[in-house]
Amino acid sequence: MTATLAEQAAMARALELAATPGVPHGPNPRVGCVLLAADGREVAEGFHRGAGSPHAEVDALRNAGGDARGATAVVTLEPCNHTSPRSGPCAEALLAAGVRRVVFAQADTNPVARGGAATLAAAGVEIEGGLLSDEARALNRAWTFAVEHGRPFVTWKFATTLDGRSAAADGTSRWVSSPAARRDTHRLRSECDVMMVGTGTVVVDDPVLTVRDELDQPLPRQPLRVVVGERELPADRRVLDDAAETLHLRTRDPHEVLARLAERDRQHVFLEGGPTLAAAFLGADLVDEVVAYVAPMLLGDGLSAVGSLGVDTIAAAHHLHVDDVTVLRGHSLEAAEDTNVRLTMTPRRA
Amino acid sequence: MTATLAEQAAMARALELAATPGVPHGPNPRVGCVLLAADGREVAEGFHRGAGSPHAEVDALRNAGGDARGATAVVTLEPCNHTSPRSGPCAEALLAAGVRRVVFAQADTNPVARGGAATLAAAGVEIEGGLLSDEARALNRAWTFAVEHGRPFVTWKFATTLDGRSAAADGTSRWVSSPAARRDTHRLRSECDVMMVGTGTVVVDDPVLTVRDELDQPLPRQPLRVVVGERELPADRRVLDDAAETLHLRTRDPHEVLARLAERDRQHVFLEGGPTLAAAFLGADLVDEVVAYVAPMLLGDGLSAVGSLGVDTIAAAHHLHVDDVTVLRGHSLEAAEDTNVRLTMTPRRA
Ligand SMILES: NC(=O)c1ccc[n+]([C@@H]2O[C@H](COP(=O)([O-])OP(=O)(O)OC[C@H]3O[C@@H](n4cnc5c(N)ncnc54)[C@H](OP(=O)(O)O)[C@@H]3O)[C@@H](O)[C@H]2O)c1
Ligand SMILES: NC(=O)c1ccc[n+]([C@@H]2O[C@H](COP(=O)([O-])OP(=O)(O)OC[C@H]3O[C@@H](n4cnc5c(N)ncnc54)[C@H](OP(=O)(O)O)[C@@H]3O)[C@@H](O)[C@H]2O)c1
Repeated sequence: MTATLAEQAAMARALELAATPGVPHGPNPRVGCVLLAADGREVAEGFHRGAGSPHAEVDALRNAGGDARGATAVVTLEPCNHTSPRSGPCAEALLAAGVRRVVFAQADTNPVARGGAATLAAAGVEIEGGLLSDEARALNRAWTFAVEHGRPFVTWKFATTLDGRSAAADGTSRWVSSPAARRDTHRLRSECDVMMVGTGTVVVDDPVLTVRDELDQPLPRQPLRVVVGERELPADRRVLDDAAETLHLRTRDPHEVLARLAERDRQHVFLEGGPTLAAAFLGADLVDEVVAYVAPMLLGDGLSAVGSLGVDTIAAAHHLHVDDVTVLRGHSLEAAEDTNVRLTMTPRRA
Repeated sequence: MTATLAEQAAMARALELAATPGVPHGPNPRVGCVLLAADGREVAEGFHRGAGSPHAEVDALRNAGGDARGATAVVTLEPCNHTSPRSGPCAEALLAAGVRRVVFAQADTNPVARGGAATLAAAGVEIEGGLLSDEARALNRAWTFAVEHGRPFVTWKFATTLDGRSAAADGTSRWVSSPAARRDTHRLRSECDVMMVGTGTVVVDDPVLTVRDELDQPLPRQPLRVVVGERELPADRRVLDDAAETLHLRTRDPHEVLARLAERDRQHVFLEGGPTLAAAFLGADLVDEVVAYVAPMLLGDGLSAVGSLGVDTIAAAHHLHVDDVTVLRGHSLEAAEDTNVRLTMTPRRA
């Protein structure tokens, strides 16, 4: 048996619920749930609002009350099998409510949570998995990656002139990334749970590394700030203020960096440079996505946007697959220079 | 009085005729002409097929025969006033044929040809100028520029990795421009009448600098090959073969280069590098269009795509306006690397 048309529509709705604006990306997956009566009518909806709040199935069951008996639960992630601080296993909650059938999108391979479908099936509930699972995986791209690879997903973002410079010879770099590109960057940052730079960038640029809104106000939820490198940081650096938590990892080993972040349940690193740290991650094949903001300007000289990769011949170049190209134009009131071209790319792995 | 609807439609048709595939770009402008009877019906069409062939008006008058008497000539360029080897002034031909009214798009500011409209008006012909003149100017962009500025229009084309390299440290550069980008480049080359490089590129790369079709066969009409620099060229260089005419300009002064080419009635230079010559033209503010093919690859080290511009601080950067961004993807049978992003830009002048 496969999913009915009503179940397919309900899954599309559950995906919408899961992506409700404001629901954080990580550490928990974003999940939505719709309960259907035997005749296909919708009984109730629910979604997970982030760590510490009820799971989507429990939220929907609460909204349904007694109407859950005999219903079909359509949920974007396989119901969990484990007890967390605020909820018991969803598989048990669904059984207790008398749900007759469960349709889910993405299978849960998380070692501590998996097995919900098997538990339900063993108790006589009809199970249908895999409906719109690509969409569900994309919705929680970094969470899915982290569960499957045991390390966070790494997005490397950099700003460059058309001739590959990140700053002029004297170190000045204003306008290399345009206001439109900076707004876009804050949107991408808000989807991550780690913002990372090397000690070099902290010493030279003194970035604050927080996520801010259109009015330049910090968002309530801030990613972990991570600085990588063996040097001691000057105490006056802004990254050490109390605007967000900061972790200084005194290592130069990208594998160790990601292992330390996996221990802390981090799933998505936004690597903002500089050139040396980015080259180290590229060299270790630990970059999963590249976002380049190309400014239509030429410098001729200046700092390279990427540090040495140890590549001396073209056959050894790092190739990327182009997923998207978008021209970011600014408001008409801003400087004429306010155009950047954003390339979103995936490294080609051997 | 302004143009009638029939005249507007005829001008659109005349622009189409002017742009007939195969009609060369330069040295003459591409021109189309439509003759209308007093009731707005089309009497005849004509277009200019390039230097040595009749002008568009003369072509249309021949096709019309006696029907030209009392007609309106709708023509994309102001009729010329001068006698060329193969035709007398178009203004006179139109008078002799008994044309009653002339509607043209672009005014002819070419010193040797201008004044046709005044001659016609003095003889009692009704004159209407400026209809779709932007379109007509765009059709003959380089010709128009050369007439107005007294020097050829310069398109600088370069291929670069995402990090601003034109070749790896050992000089290898295969795949920096993809097959799709190379096909695209030949299309752009075919619109120019000069292909230019510096002596450095000839010595290192030994390019043949011809325009070839999809099957890698040279086109019948080849641009002039120009090599700039004081060095003597090794006699075995392919640019010295007889596939096309070659001019070696033993100078390092970009102004002198363009003056020499203007003397030869050249209107559109395709500057293909290398980095040093391109930087010299940029520095002299003699680049009018920039076409960059960006390859989604990273080298970290290697040759810079642009030579030194003497810019040491960001405020002195060369800014470009982005006119177009196009992703060039290859055929599926070609290498996976076959994607380039083409940016077409205009330098911002102070
Ligand atoms: N265009 C952009 O997008 C962008 C972004 C950020 C920064 N920048 C520019 O980049 C410049 C700073 O460059 P940077 O390369 O010094 O910055 P960086 O990459 O942030 O820091 C480099 C430092 O990271 C440490 N490190 C960590 N892992 C390493 C490894 N595997 N190998 C080598 N070193 C490792 C080293 O410091 P220890 O000695 O402490 O170990 C090294 O000196 C600034 O001028 C800044 O403006 C540009
Ligand atoms: N990525 C691309 O699109 C692309 C395109 C072409 C070439 N390339 C690469 O560029 C490399 C060659 O670089 P290049 O810079 O030597 O090539 P280049 O720019 O073609 O030639 C440089 C030479 O031009 C002469 N020159 C003319 N005007 C000058 C001026 N105003 N100032 C200084 N020199 C002037 C000088 O030679 P004299 O001493 O003879 O006067 C100079 O050495 C090759 O490796 C090639 O592969 C890349």
